Amino acid sequence: MANFFSLDLVFNALADPTRRAIIGRLTNGPASVSELAEPFEIGLPTFLKHIRVLEEGGLVSTTKAGRVRTCNLTPGALRSADTWLQLHIATWEERLDQLEAHLAHLSEKDRDND
Amino acid sequence: MANFFSLDLVFNALADPTRRAIIGRLTNGPASVSELAEPFEIGLPTFLKHIRVLEEGGLVSTTKAGRVRTCNLTPGALRSADTWLQLHIATWEERLDQLEAHLAHLSEKDRDND
Repeated sequence: MANFFSLDLVFNALADPTRRAIIGRLTNGPASVSELAEPFEIGLPTFLKHIRVLEEGGLVSTTKAGRVRTCNLTPGALRSADTWLQLHIATWEERLDQLEAHLAHLSEKDRDND
Repeated sequence: MANFFSLDLVFNALADPTRRAIIGRLTNGPASVSELAEPFEIGLPTFLKHIRVLEEGGLVSTTKAGRVRTCNLTPGALRSADTWLQLHIATWEERLDQLEAHLAHLSEKDRDND
């Protein structure tokens, strides 16, 4: 699952406050492009570019019915980014734990030698 | 803590395979720039640009001793990105659960009316 999404495109899509706000809105359910664009003081072409970057990252899918384009969150891409982060945080923490255990061991040995 | 890092810069730093590989290497402990650069077939100036983007994102800190620059992972930025993702995944999942409960309730009511 994690490999299905390009992490380059997912993280790139997340690197913008407007796009993160759109994701925030969509966690509460689908919305039309015009509903989504409303809170932002940017032109529609610029807004549509943001939607496209989110689609390219696999974070959002859109469907068109008549003149209305509806956006949906596709949470798999969020999860693949999260999986990557969690794995690296865990590796880092494991190393810290080992380092701590090693230092504790050294200081015990130090005490024994006193 | 989460607000201390610019999520724009953190996610931007993560949106590149070389930079993610550098982070992967640094989860195992500090390394010098030349050690880090070794597996990549790119020029040092380009490699140093990647290090700078990681520093700007708060993901890596560097210290210089003599001619050797050592890179360290600073895990706070990874955690702030992870916090953002987890929050949005949780909101999304909560909404799905509510939707499911609502549908189950409707189908129960439907049965009662039969």
